[in-house]
Amino acid sequence: MTEERKRLRDLGYQVGILPTGEFNLITDVPGVLVGHSTIIEGEGKLIPGKGPERTGVTIIRPHPGNNYREKVRASAFVFNGYGKTTGLVQVQELGNIESIIALTNTLNVPLVANALIDYHIKENPDIGIDTSTINVVVGECHDGKLNDIQGRHVKKEHVYEAIKNADKFFKEGSVGAGTGMTALGYKAGIGSSSRKIEDRNLTYHLGALVLSNFGMKGDLTILGKSIDKIDKVQEREKGSIMVILATDAPLNARQLCRLSKRAPLGISRTGSFGSHGSGDVIISFSTSNKIDHDNKESILTMKIVNERTKLFRSLLRAVVESTEEAILNSILMAETIVGRDNNKSEAISIENVKRKLSE
Amino acid sequence: MTEERKRLRDLGYQVGILPTGEFNLITDVPGVLVGHSTIIEGEGKLIPGKGPERTGVTIIRPHPGNNYREKVRASAFVFNGYGKTTGLVQVQELGNIESIIALTNTLNVPLVANALIDYHIKENPDIGIDTSTINVVVGECHDGKLNDIQGRHVKKEHVYEAIKNADKFFKEGSVGAGTGMTALGYKAGIGSSSRKIEDRNLTYHLGALVLSNFGMKGDLTILGKSIDKIDKVQEREKGSIMVILATDAPLNARQLCRLSKRAPLGISRTGSFGSHGSGDVIISFSTSNKIDHDNKESILTMKIVNERTKLFRSLLRAVVESTEEAILNSILMAETIVGRDNNKSEAISIENVKRKLSE
Amino acid sequence: MTEERKRLRDLGYQVGILPTGEFNLITDVPGVLVGHSTIIEGEGKLIPGKGPERTGVTIIRPHPGNNYREKVRASAFVFNGYGKTTGLVQVQELGNIESIIALTNTLNVPLVANALIDYHIKENPDIGIDTSTINVVVGECHDGKLNDIQGRHVKKEHVYEAIKNADKFFKEGSVGAGTGMTALGYKAGIGSSSRKIEDRNLTYHLGALVLSNFGMKGDLTILGKSIDKIDKVQEREKGSIMVILATDAPLNARQLCRLSKRAPLGISRTGSFGSHGSGDVIISFSTSNKIDHDNKESILTMKIVNERTKLFRSLLRAVVESTEEAILNSILMAETIVGRDNNKSEAISIENVKRKLSE
Amino acid sequence: MTEERKRLRDLGYQVGILPTGEFNLITDVPGVLVGHSTIIEGEGKLIPGKGPERTGVTIIRPHPGNNYREKVRASAFVFNGYGKTTGLVQVQELGNIESIIALTNTLNVPLVANALIDYHIKENPDIGIDTSTINVVVGECHDGKLNDIQGRHVKKEHVYEAIKNADKFFKEGSVGAGTGMTALGYKAGIGSSSRKIEDRNLTYHLGALVLSNFGMKGDLTILGKSIDKIDKVQEREKGSIMVILATDAPLNARQLCRLSKRAPLGISRTGSFGSHGSGDVIISFSTSNKIDHDNKESILTMKIVNERTKLFRSLLRAVVESTEEAILNSILMAETIVGRDNNKSEAISIENVKRKLSE
Repeated sequence: MTEERKRLRDLGYQVGILPTGEFNLITDVPGVLVGHSTIIEGEGKLIPGKGPERTGVTIIRPHPGNNYREKVRASAFVFNGYGKTTGLVQVQELGNIESIIALTNTLNVPLVANALIDYHIKENPDIGIDTSTINVVVGECHDGKLNDIQGRHVKKEHVYEAIKNADKFFKEGSVGAGTGMTALGYKAGIGSSSRKIEDRNLTYHLGALVLSNFGMKGDLTILGKSIDKIDKVQEREKGSIMVILATDAPLNARQLCRLSKRAPLGISRTGSFGSHGSGDVIISFSTSNKIDHDNKESILTMKIVNERTKLFRSLLRAVVESTEEAILNSILMAETIVGRDNNKSEAISIENVKRKLSE
Repeated sequence: MTEERKRLRDLGYQVGILPTGEFNLITDVPGVLVGHSTIIEGEGKLIPGKGPERTGVTIIRPHPGNNYREKVRASAFVFNGYGKTTGLVQVQELGNIESIIALTNTLNVPLVANALIDYHIKENPDIGIDTSTINVVVGECHDGKLNDIQGRHVKKEHVYEAIKNADKFFKEGSVGAGTGMTALGYKAGIGSSSRKIEDRNLTYHLGALVLSNFGMKGDLTILGKSIDKIDKVQEREKGSIMVILATDAPLNARQLCRLSKRAPLGISRTGSFGSHGSGDVIISFSTSNKIDHDNKESILTMKIVNERTKLFRSLLRAVVESTEEAILNSILMAETIVGRDNNKSEAISIENVKRKLSE
Repeated sequence: MTEERKRLRDLGYQVGILPTGEFNLITDVPGVLVGHSTIIEGEGKLIPGKGPERTGVTIIRPHPGNNYREKVRASAFVFNGYGKTTGLVQVQELGNIESIIALTNTLNVPLVANALIDYHIKENPDIGIDTSTINVVVGECHDGKLNDIQGRHVKKEHVYEAIKNADKFFKEGSVGAGTGMTALGYKAGIGSSSRKIEDRNLTYHLGALVLSNFGMKGDLTILGKSIDKIDKVQEREKGSIMVILATDAPLNARQLCRLSKRAPLGISRTGSFGSHGSGDVIISFSTSNKIDHDNKESILTMKIVNERTKLFRSLLRAVVESTEEAILNSILMAETIVGRDNNKSEAISIENVKRKLSE
Repeated sequence: MTEERKRLRDLGYQVGILPTGEFNLITDVPGVLVGHSTIIEGEGKLIPGKGPERTGVTIIRPHPGNNYREKVRASAFVFNGYGKTTGLVQVQELGNIESIIALTNTLNVPLVANALIDYHIKENPDIGIDTSTINVVVGECHDGKLNDIQGRHVKKEHVYEAIKNADKFFKEGSVGAGTGMTALGYKAGIGSSSRKIEDRNLTYHLGALVLSNFGMKGDLTILGKSIDKIDKVQEREKGSIMVILATDAPLNARQLCRLSKRAPLGISRTGSFGSHGSGDVIISFSTSNKIDHDNKESILTMKIVNERTKLFRSLLRAVVESTEEAILNSILMAETIVGRDNNKSEAISIENVKRKLSE
């Protein structure tokens, strides 16, 4: 089945008007790397704490260097706070991220955070001794429909594996943190997309990666078309969505927050109404203007985009377009998963999507 | 021309799946009243401070009683703060609104606020003397493309006229505060829509009223269909959108804020990407649980919706649906206006919309 | 009586450990100017709308140039939002201030805002026509105990007069917006203080200006000493405090917001517990990194203070110290005012303060 | 030495004017319980990951029942976000806390959070399977000066021990999470205080518990008196403060947030200026209006305090008073601790404090 999955562009369609980056992935932003560790073990009846396991971890590395020593300007916007993302207090105060970012299942956030602390301490043995401590950022969605979520099966080794795997190329769909996720009635998970903006002989990139697990059966909308006709409110929405935005345009934290706030516009176009039970969190960072942890100078110089320009407006548009397309890719690329208690989350039929889009 | 304007439902289409209130207007929420004062004077070349005038004021009355003495629970969410709405500091702190709400052009906010102060002092002569002062709420969009905005032509008499006109029935399109507004390349202005939610033998209403003045030519989307094909970013987005949400479901300020945050999802579906130059502000209130200004009891009792229920989820969905439909109505119902310097904002062709929607 | 008023330092005392700027005023920050217009008319019985008048306006000019064309980086923190300050929505979104800042009485905010619009349009006739509109910032406190606040006696001419009067030197106490204010049981109003920070051969300044009108009789604390012994909660707190912070250190909006959040620490030390009925708003700006309204470049360069340095910590300390001292000066410098209905707000006895401080 | 430590009231002094609850502890709020687990192992040279250990965990139980099944209304205010508290995203969105609250050292937050998940799953085996997941709240300060913080020595057994120990009576000072903490130049840690408010024949309580680890040597202020004369800025401030506020007054999340914002006023009076490197987070909850997790009714009824009353103002005052006194108790009650690398954090001399206060 795997070979049949297609990204939206493979079907001959696109979201919006801006051109994509080279591979239409968040990693088109130079330096950004993504890695997965996918955990699929056991099957059948749920034995809490034992399995079956349908989960994993996905890490987003803002740059390949020492992420603690070279922090990135960052921001977070909580669109719907029914979620357990950790690390946002400091991101919002200081406007930076000083760790690798990880995504996983809801109850695994602490163990994944602890593993990230391990990793960064190993690289920076002065943490908490001769310098400050570290703030790690871990986001989550709830994969308990398919996964033995109480088991917290994502361990340190999986986090390390995902970091080791981190690359410019990465899979979408039912992989890593996305293994057990479902969105809008279909199997979903990891998806990505990017946009490229030319401005006065310079090229900037903006990419989105989503962990999608939101929305109700019946609400899926692709390029404005309702895929499943519904005429009444279905079962309650479960789940959440995490959106990670990366750009190489020089933006400060306030500007990144303005970008983050546009991601829900892209989410909306896929059919979400932002239901109660959804933790929708957007984290964004810029790879420009890195902050040197050890810099002792009193005054720093930074570049920032002039907000009154077409460049800034294009960045906002790029957020909406790439978020929408990343979500669609997360669904189109996801393979069917049968999980605990034989619960099944079915992949969308690519043929059906093609037919609907050509109607 | 006026007779030809149609609301979306008059064309045989609808947004979403929830049923509307009786008239598909914000005033379907019992007690809510809306009134306009429309100012159209002069034509031709702009003489700043003199005219031509293409502006007005629209007021939303949370209930027909003394709005200072009986405050409503309220919330505000600033999606994009490039705007000049006044009164939000106190709304956000205390979670209530104690005045009539007015919408007008950007530079007229102070004079309209001052007129509201006049009005409420007349009704409550103890304001600032024997009791506290008053917080008035005035939102705005920028109609300077058509209107002599420097002239601040909305005077006390217009505010009073709009209050006097306040009714369950009101016009949409190029009226009141909407007189000089343009959205997504077309003449726009005031629009409204509502939803009705049945829950265990009780009926609740949620209504939206928008003042739409946002978005770029080329981005208009109706029911998922792009109306104008675009292949590159056009001129810069100007303007803003104000969304007023009313409900008779008993909600507290935190819950109302959660509702407010869903309005941008509806805005998104009409084609906005939340551009830089747009002040997008959502104000919501509940007509239940009114607050008696003179109540001296230490402990109050209030009812609130249980957020873990289908009722609450339906309210969230109702926000997205009614906001989107209110915007579409604001465009469909707006008549062409020629303003200062013969600048023209053209009404959308209803025939063209029909054709596109039936393709 | 006027000649007898003393600032805290005239009594031989000081707040904190940092040195002051040259005149211990907010205007020690180069370029910052302050001007008042004081309105005292009539006496005796209140005739609402007629008088007596005990009010005024105080303006803070971030720099002597065109404040719209050269905006300053800015931030606002609402410690207690029971207030009617206007203009904050945009300040918080864009991180800048593009107008002269005015302080006045609560009900006069709209007319003062309208006068500021007049002033800036005159200087920038393209506002709202060939360029964007303008966001004006006006803060307030409630002087209704002494003043016919319903009368809104601060007119355009007073705003213009205050702008014309703007200077490096300005009066404190019962002047300008402070004319009718009372704090902690004593006549209060305008006060100011500043701090100077030496850092690697460069000197930075931070200054505070307050409009003080907060706190309960009995709570006044000077340098840690309770001035009036109280043993039970007195009458309810009325009023508010506005704090304006200026600095020439290069800070961005996020950093300025961090500074603003420290001002309540200074307020606390004078005896406030931040009562319900108090609108406590802090607005801060940096005169470095001005933003050229007409700059069309895509990328801007700016300098910002490294937050991990002693310089930044000293700026935070400077906020607390200068806010506390500004409040004390606002009380020590205020003369007794008898207002409407012969209500009297009595100046604190300097002799009494001296005695208490030397105990 | 232990027997010599004294609370402020044991020295014959008090903060403010409101009466305390029965034991002047947060547990005067009926139902609230506090428990510690203190970890002191090894001495001498730091071997990262091995020891010495000077740390622990303190838990605050909002009520003795099932904290997941019966949630409490809650709020969080981040005064200074340079911290790693987890769980706030959901607290701020939903306005409730559904777990036991834990405090520990910075790097131990994940393991403590994971242990809390264990505990609550054991009590509620449907978590993540037949019902939603769980949001656990863990706050922290940095005890790395005395403790092998990299070692993350607080394990599941310690968390369970602290929960088991939870009682109306608990120790202050160098215990639990406070074991390795230092504030304002002195050994500090856990402190508590409470206030009692009589209102129309009903009695309400408000209590504060702090984990204090903030401020610079030289800045300590007790009842307005500077304890250590300083004339210049000393070494950089390290550390943070966590403040937990509990009350049995019926407040909703918005009101609790207003209370939380007053805690920094109490912190200020002990000498803090809110330095850069301090994560200052305030979490508050009300034991009234508990939320039944399994309630399926659409409409809930709740009681809330009328904010326009003396009761509400007294609650605000109680926050400031009890926070200040809790901090002073955390210092006065803390015993000297010698930790890693023989770093020593010395207890304040009670005799010296007595002398200073009587001067």
